[in-house]
Amino acid sequence: MPIITFIDYAGVAVFAATGALAASRKQLDIVGFVFLAAVTGVGGGTFRDLILGVPVFWIGNRDYVLICTLVALVVFFGAHRVESRYKLLLWLDAIGLAVFAVMGAAKGMAITGSPAVSIVMGMLTACFGGILRDLLAGEPSVLLRPEVYVTAAIVGACVYTACDLILLPAQISYPAGFLAALAIRGGALKFG
Amino acid sequence: MPIITFIDYAGVAVFAATGALAASRKQLDIVGFVFLAAVTGVGGGTFRDLILGVPVFWIGNRDYVLICTLVALVVFFGAHRVESRYKLLLWLDAIGLAVFAVMGAAKGMAITGSPAVSIVMGMLTACFGGILRDLLAGEPSVLLRPEVYVTAAIVGACVYTACDLILLPAQISYPAGFLAALAIRGGALKFG
Amino acid sequence: MPIITFIDYAGVAVFAATGALAASRKQLDIVGFVFLAAVTGVGGGTFRDLILGVPVFWIGNRDYVLICTLVALVVFFGAHRVESRYKLLLWLDAIGLAVFAVMGAAKGMAITGSPAVSIVMGMLTACFGGILRDLLAGEPSVLLRPEVYVTAAIVGACVYTACDLILLPAQISYPAGFLAALAIRGGALKFG
Repeated sequence: MPIITFIDYAGVAVFAATGALAASRKQLDIVGFVFLAAVTGVGGGTFRDLILGVPVFWIGNRDYVLICTLVALVVFFGAHRVESRYKLLLWLDAIGLAVFAVMGAAKGMAITGSPAVSIVMGMLTACFGGILRDLLAGEPSVLLRPEVYVTAAIVGACVYTACDLILLPAQISYPAGFLAALAIRGGALKFG
Repeated sequence: MPIITFIDYAGVAVFAATGALAASRKQLDIVGFVFLAAVTGVGGGTFRDLILGVPVFWIGNRDYVLICTLVALVVFFGAHRVESRYKLLLWLDAIGLAVFAVMGAAKGMAITGSPAVSIVMGMLTACFGGILRDLLAGEPSVLLRPEVYVTAAIVGACVYTACDLILLPAQISYPAGFLAALAIRGGALKFG
Repeated sequence: MPIITFIDYAGVAVFAATGALAASRKQLDIVGFVFLAAVTGVGGGTFRDLILGVPVFWIGNRDYVLICTLVALVVFFGAHRVESRYKLLLWLDAIGLAVFAVMGAAKGMAITGSPAVSIVMGMLTACFGGILRDLLAGEPSVLLRPEVYVTAAIVGACVYTACDLILLPAQISYPAGFLAALAIRGGALKFG
């Protein structure tokens, strides 16, 4: 498995875990866990692909649905253990956010060639899963909380897009965008 | 009209009626009735088609929009009569859920060939209309109520997909999935 | 710039302003302003294009994203001034609603040829941006307020479609639909 695929799967799994934890807070049944995990895990990428007019990524690869289901089951049967590791999870979520901001921007850039659209795509991919999760779980949207969540996604997407525009190689632009998003979101978690 | 088309129309009409009843509870005007009826009636299938990358089903066939409008008008001008038949309506809704779970899974299977994706499609088609209705009407999502709604849809989609995988004919797989979903949702209504 | 493009840009800008004002009421940061402005400004047209199966309009033209961003910045740094002009803004919003109802119906008619679908498209284009804004901002949906918002959009789309069906030229059908929607929404603002 190439490293980029592994990182992509890890991002989906981490977001799915946050969806399952939201289901846990709402005391849903096992199906609610799977549903919220799947919506959160693949929601952002689904919107990205629909808007870009390309095939939705999880349609051609059943791994994504299986990963979300597996993560939901793990959280369902071990929620008390995961709950006590909520801090770890916030950091994993920050990693997922950073990964998806860069990969959304990269897909937007590859397909449209427009920096403005690419930045929006990075933001959408990173944030829409969480927004859907909060809407469906009836919690205040992450948008309304005083957290630099969307900001981190935009900055990551901007840094990636800028690197790409000045023709830096992928080995530099991907990590640069990733680290920028992670630094901002991580800083908010640590000092916010 | 072939039987499958009739059942499809009936499913849309029943979901549209639940949307119109939500509008009635919120004391909306006639336009609110039509809007919620249409969103609930065709919302799930719209998401299914968008994600599968096929033309949205109600674009090429105006019957669906007309059915939703007609149902909304009937409920609007006769709501007191329908309201007193709420129990009947819950059962009709259960039938709609069962129909759409199977038809969503069948469309997913026909287009992608992936069982995991087909089950998700059955679930989406059956549940997303109701989720949109609750979001727009400002009511707690059906997801958060202690009803085996999503579960019934998933089980129906699973049974259909399993029948299809072992090459049973459509005359068996469709009713099998339908009856499985209806039994679970109906059981919840009767004994829940 | 042709007049139709100018009107289209103006409609997006006006809706973006209502999104930014919602962000102002929720005391969001600058990123929240941009996000809600963009969702409100291009949300309705995005749904329209996805459902019609045509490329999303703002993907091929970065002007739309830039307009939303600019409007969000203007509102962010001058909100106190705009806030005091809320009445003006409601009227601008009514103009945007009327423009989008007609342009949505026209795009639906051009692509599907179905009057029923075109009216739905006019309604979706005009209303979905505001619905998304209210959902994300955690405010009661415009659907649930006693305002003839959706009605105005539907009437505008109906008038345009009717004019188009009896083969009136665009110079008549566009203004007729626009004025019908504006008269109804404006009447509700003035006398409602």
